[in-house]
Amino acid sequence: MARIVTKFGGTSLATPQRIREVAARLLAYQNEGNQVVAVVSAMGKSTDELLKLAHDVNENPPARELDQLLATGEQVSMSILAMALDARGAHAVSMTGRQAGIVTTTVHNKAKISEINAERINKELEAGGIVIVAGFQGVTREGDITTLGRGGSDTTAVALAAGIDADICEIYSDVDGIYTADPRVVPRARKLDAISYEEMLELAAAGSGVLTMRAVEFARNYGVVIHSRSTFNNKPGTLVKEASEMEQAIVSGIAYDNSEAKVTLRDVPDDVGIAAEVFGTIADANINIDMIVQNISENGTTDISFTAPMGELPRLQPVLEAAVVKFGARKFVVDESVAKVSIVGAGMKSNPGIAAKMFRVLADNGVNIGMISTSAIRVSVVIDGDKTETALQTLHTAFGLDSEEVFEETQLSGEELAAKKAKGR
Amino acid sequence: MARIVTKFGGTSLATPQRIREVAARLLAYQNEGNQVVAVVSAMGKSTDELLKLAHDVNENPPARELDQLLATGEQVSMSILAMALDARGAHAVSMTGRQAGIVTTTVHNKAKISEINAERINKELEAGGIVIVAGFQGVTREGDITTLGRGGSDTTAVALAAGIDADICEIYSDVDGIYTADPRVVPRARKLDAISYEEMLELAAAGSGVLTMRAVEFARNYGVVIHSRSTFNNKPGTLVKEASEMEQAIVSGIAYDNSEAKVTLRDVPDDVGIAAEVFGTIADANINIDMIVQNISENGTTDISFTAPMGELPRLQPVLEAAVVKFGARKFVVDESVAKVSIVGAGMKSNPGIAAKMFRVLADNGVNIGMISTSAIRVSVVIDGDKTETALQTLHTAFGLDSEEVFEETQLSGEELAAKKAKGR
Repeated sequence: MARIVTKFGGTSLATPQRIREVAARLLAYQNEGNQVVAVVSAMGKSTDELLKLAHDVNENPPARELDQLLATGEQVSMSILAMALDARGAHAVSMTGRQAGIVTTTVHNKAKISEINAERINKELEAGGIVIVAGFQGVTREGDITTLGRGGSDTTAVALAAGIDADICEIYSDVDGIYTADPRVVPRARKLDAISYEEMLELAAAGSGVLTMRAVEFARNYGVVIHSRSTFNNKPGTLVKEASEMEQAIVSGIAYDNSEAKVTLRDVPDDVGIAAEVFGTIADANINIDMIVQNISENGTTDISFTAPMGELPRLQPVLEAAVVKFGARKFVVDESVAKVSIVGAGMKSNPGIAAKMFRVLADNGVNIGMISTSAIRVSVVIDGDKTETALQTLHTAFGLDSEEVFEETQLSGEELAAKKAKGR
Repeated sequence: MARIVTKFGGTSLATPQRIREVAARLLAYQNEGNQVVAVVSAMGKSTDELLKLAHDVNENPPARELDQLLATGEQVSMSILAMALDARGAHAVSMTGRQAGIVTTTVHNKAKISEINAERINKELEAGGIVIVAGFQGVTREGDITTLGRGGSDTTAVALAAGIDADICEIYSDVDGIYTADPRVVPRARKLDAISYEEMLELAAAGSGVLTMRAVEFARNYGVVIHSRSTFNNKPGTLVKEASEMEQAIVSGIAYDNSEAKVTLRDVPDDVGIAAEVFGTIADANINIDMIVQNISENGTTDISFTAPMGELPRLQPVLEAAVVKFGARKFVVDESVAKVSIVGAGMKSNPGIAAKMFRVLADNGVNIGMISTSAIRVSVVIDGDKTETALQTLHTAFGLDSEEVFEETQLSGEELAAKKAKGR
């Protein structure tokens, strides 16, 4: 007998029919002798509908009230799933974040789980119940409802798996697992059987959207094995676990992110501490930026470049205008047509020359590199966005990741890639 | 400074625009120096939509899960209303039943409020906040969500008014208050300025749908003054309070109910205790019945008639079939085309002859009486449903209730009355 925590996203719960299918899957787990907990997201697009309603009455709804509102989305799907299980003769008990004992910090809209009091869940599991928990939400010590922010349901699932000492945390979504690259862009992408926490974190940070970083960090910290798999078939997906348990590939995966823009401050006086001041100003405005490059000084001035999410540009613009004046720079330039491409692999640590090989492959294929940043197990470059597909496919081949099979599902066309980019705004 | 509890039904909160209007009204109360609590129902038809979703996955959803689901309806409207108040610069705090300290019994779908822990509400009111409470819901001592059943939000409002020692409980709906009769059937109906708890209870029991009996009973038991008024204008409505504070009219109002059927068991052997046995059998099936009449015995057999909600007929049918066999009756007959008409007035106690006058008025106008039942302040008769309008209008005139003005809004046509009846099924 195993204890299994499963997590189902909104797409997997979008319709009564899909909810019935999830119920059948949970019941099968139980019939195999397992204790089963399911963490659920809100059905389909229901969170978007609640947000629209909120913005109809208040352009900037207060954070506490937004949490009280959004928490209903998961509360609906949890009770409907419990009803679907009941219809199949199973005993199911739904629980809100509060009922499941998920205590969080008081930061509304992006609370962090601080404690899990799992007595009720354990009691219901021991009594033979299938427990359905509303993801994405918790409660403060004062009894206020909180939500965990983007990807919160994944975090709920991993935290619960740690809290009830589950054997595995199965995260179901609409993809089969973790691929060596986005199969919609790289048709020869291969599904990985397993990947280490560290590699998964680097891939997630570099733009791979299957699992959220917070959930993977939580899993690493508490040693929870994640199984990323598809709701729409029964094939095994990808295990995310300790690196020690697997062979270390030199390059495990390639990720891309075209939701960021490259920003350059031109001809900044090259004084001591100027970079600290520039980025201090940006940090004060609470804007997250990513790669930072400072060029070699020439005539006492320098160029400072960084990448930032395109969605932040409206807020970044006035900060940069002020910075140009304050620091005596010539001007700032924003390039929205860039993409970041990253290769990730735990084996890089013991294999020098991986970065050099990446740069050569890109150069041989006419892809110009604008910025570079590296970690122990990752190399990222910023390139012209139009070259994303070329870069991904040639790197994928060069690092020996190509599958024999060609991915058959619809490929993203140039227009779709552009649309995906536009959505980042 | 007064403490005011207000309650807004689903129609008053059906759209963002109506929610903004409710917010404006609450803010006006606060600006006049009052402490304000608002109890809200679910927006518009959202409870029906949740029920439909539930029945899509389970024809007979478990009661606990239904409560977990339905409670989200009020949770949405409470947070949206709080956001609308915030948009107007007010400080508003929404609370679920649990957050508001509403503790109930464990009977899901029709829990009773057993305790109100009002510390949090009092704290927020003292701090200048407008408190928005989700109606219709509470929490058991074990932390399970419960709902209070039909009209539950009215009960929440009255119970809260008692719990925080409010000066008044204003129940807003889409009608102006309590009328001497349904103005859609009796165009000369008059709005009452005040009515006693006892009269209101009799009118509610007799079919007047403005306030629910449970809420009025609660108000009577705890001395809460209710003000029933309209969301759509600023006119004073009807106060519901102690009889001692007002002049007692002989007839205060006339109500009708066409949602019940008349059932007759024919030729039941007239043995001692047979009625007790018949109605014991029906009570065991948990079916509520209303008026009971037993005819005078003839040839050792008798007819027993009663009324029952048409919605209960499918469950009642097999019980009656068994009763016919068990008690040796000849057969049973169901007449769905009846209506119950009641006159209610505290002054009846000291004015004999009111029932006789009622019967005479009906006879003079060709309305045949099928059954009669009375209380100290009410006389009810069952008549042919087609005569409902005639009965109501002639009684209204005969007991001096007619207004000078004629109610101008759309009257219910014969078809609409029939449709209303069909809905009872």
